[in-house]
Amino acid sequence: MTARREPIEYANASAEVRAVYDDIMATRKTDWVNNFWKVLAHDPATLRRIWSNIKQVMGPGAIDPLTKEMLYLAVSASNGCRYCIASHGAAARSKGMSEAQYSELLAIVGLANETNRMVTALDVQVDSQFL
Amino acid sequence: MTARREPIEYANASAEVRAVYDDIMATRKTDWVNNFWKVLAHDPATLRRIWSNIKQVMGPGAIDPLTKEMLYLAVSASNGCRYCIASHGAAARSKGMSEAQYSELLAIVGLANETNRMVTALDVQVDSQFL
Amino acid sequence: MTARREPIEYANASAEVRAVYDDIMATRKTDWVNNFWKVLAHDPATLRRIWSNIKQVMGPGAIDPLTKEMLYLAVSASNGCRYCIASHGAAARSKGMSEAQYSELLAIVGLANETNRMVTALDVQVDSQFL
Amino acid sequence: MTARREPIEYANASAEVRAVYDDIMATRKTDWVNNFWKVLAHDPATLRRIWSNIKQVMGPGAIDPLTKEMLYLAVSASNGCRYCIASHGAAARSKGMSEAQYSELLAIVGLANETNRMVTALDVQVDSQFL
Amino acid sequence: MTARREPIEYANASAEVRAVYDDIMATRKTDWVNNFWKVLAHDPATLRRIWSNIKQVMGPGAIDPLTKEMLYLAVSASNGCRYCIASHGAAARSKGMSEAQYSELLAIVGLANETNRMVTALDVQVDSQFL
Amino acid sequence: MTARREPIEYANASAEVRAVYDDIMATRKTDWVNNFWKVLAHDPATLRRIWSNIKQVMGPGAIDPLTKEMLYLAVSASNGCRYCIASHGAAARSKGMSEAQYSELLAIVGLANETNRMVTALDVQVDSQFL
Repeated sequence: MTARREPIEYANASAEVRAVYDDIMATRKTDWVNNFWKVLAHDPATLRRIWSNIKQVMGPGAIDPLTKEMLYLAVSASNGCRYCIASHGAAARSKGMSEAQYSELLAIVGLANETNRMVTALDVQVDSQFL
Repeated sequence: MTARREPIEYANASAEVRAVYDDIMATRKTDWVNNFWKVLAHDPATLRRIWSNIKQVMGPGAIDPLTKEMLYLAVSASNGCRYCIASHGAAARSKGMSEAQYSELLAIVGLANETNRMVTALDVQVDSQFL
Repeated sequence: MTARREPIEYANASAEVRAVYDDIMATRKTDWVNNFWKVLAHDPATLRRIWSNIKQVMGPGAIDPLTKEMLYLAVSASNGCRYCIASHGAAARSKGMSEAQYSELLAIVGLANETNRMVTALDVQVDSQFL
Repeated sequence: MTARREPIEYANASAEVRAVYDDIMATRKTDWVNNFWKVLAHDPATLRRIWSNIKQVMGPGAIDPLTKEMLYLAVSASNGCRYCIASHGAAARSKGMSEAQYSELLAIVGLANETNRMVTALDVQVDSQFL
Repeated sequence: MTARREPIEYANASAEVRAVYDDIMATRKTDWVNNFWKVLAHDPATLRRIWSNIKQVMGPGAIDPLTKEMLYLAVSASNGCRYCIASHGAAARSKGMSEAQYSELLAIVGLANETNRMVTALDVQVDSQFL
Repeated sequence: MTARREPIEYANASAEVRAVYDDIMATRKTDWVNNFWKVLAHDPATLRRIWSNIKQVMGPGAIDPLTKEMLYLAVSASNGCRYCIASHGAAARSKGMSEAQYSELLAIVGLANETNRMVTALDVQVDSQFL
């Protein structure tokens, strides 16, 4: 047993795992599955659960698809998850995010992290207008 | 000296601080200044600097104003900054964020935090397609 | 059983706990013990262990006492621990930190959090000059 | 478009970017610019803004230059930003931080992270003496 | 619209929301629902989704129920989520966690946060024995 | 001076450092010491202090050794400390953690991070039943 779990390729996957892979590719209209899912596949119940969550949360709703990806990307950048920045960055770009928009997104992530800490440290009280 | 800094009201502010307050109100077309700025006012150089950053980053650009506020709000929610959630939540709502959109934003923040940790813990390697 | 543990006052403390309280007061030349220790006192082994760590790490060494307190305060502000900001802020002030220095400390905490996220998100490679 | 942005060297930089690089080198009395700035250069407005912030916050003030670098380093270490640890570690050393001081700084960062969590989890109430 | 969402009581809930509340109470063998669910109820799709996740992840499996609650509690304590510490602390206690065990859990949370930062800051390389 | 500290091997270690290495190996009944300790060895006082903490906190107590390792691992996974995940993952496995248990542990870490953020963002009030 090792710390890292190797991706499980389609050819080696169980029927249960293949069913999720198929749904991912059909939903995304692609012919490949990225490593996150192939690593989760060691635990098929979690693979199915997380995919089901992503499909519901990132699917059609009140926020448009590009903005959804940019929100996911911003949180991932704030948390420093490199893989997530790469994968959701690619998704956002495929949905239309320009380089100028990415630069602005990063600037917002940085500034929010700066002011979040200053506000908390200074224990700023919520204005009555915001209640 | 105490840990918390009290807000400095306009009436008690120096000319240097009032100039920033005036610019905040003019830029936002409001007649009041929220507590974050009034607390920062104990340190006028920082007040001016942070306001100048906010004005540049959150001003007109490649991302529309509502999306900018939602990105700021998402990062603040992810970081657990209650004041920032209240203030940027109010700003996003004033720019048109609906309750349904806020619910979806929170769902994305939650899910990104979940998958960010799983990805990092499993040390998922970036797919060549994302490079 | 409740979530919050009430402070254990000296009068109600065991001999084992009183010995730590006495050492805290003797080391700090004060006649009271702050709530952190009184809450830890529900678990005397942890009380003694944490105090022993604080005494060693924050005691005389290569960094002067004021700078040590400011470092502790900066990390606590970055982590948003309100109690720790209050207690280490008081300690830093008692050792000479001015309000102007506190303002600068907070500015550094904020800016470091901003650039830390941008650097990580952009996956900046370490310059050979830094290796 | 890829996730990582390549550093923009001086020879390939626009006049606007070169002006910032020149100011960085003049301010620091060095003949090179580190990768953080070269990566930010893809977005000249952000490059200029962040440099202006760093110059103001890390410039002469109430806290001496070495302590400022050590505070920046401590926050970066607490946040796990490897590049920032390398760059601000180098800056702190060039301003006089000894290896013994670095060891003590890391010990403080570690201990603050330990006690910050215990304090928050135990919901310790702020002592009246700290208010 | 305000920042905080008020809990939706059973008497005022829609049939869709009541169905989830009923399942929560039946699963937990209790006659009340805690505030987290009542606040999520403003967004029934998210209420149902998160409950479904909790039910799957915290239900019977390879890890015993008490240990599952203690793991949830440890992560919540590490993240400083006060409500989560209260609710999962109560759940862990109802499943048998003693005060001595809670003290040890908090000690582990604190120590892990300390060593996690030191390890990351020092960029310790993974031993071949761990690969 | 460089940012990374190289591991100090037993053959090159001082008597003071060797004494700690010997105690680590005797306590763990192994014939090698992992890199964390060899890197800490540049600062013998910290090496001894951290080992003493680990020995006390992770030693026999009210929580069984496997659960202790799983708690340490869960916090380390939540914090994204790769080395710590590798080392405490190995320790947990050597004490009996199965792959199915590790999968469930990661699922809990992920879900706790999701709900922790939603709870904090929604400012859920603690139920009276939990007080």
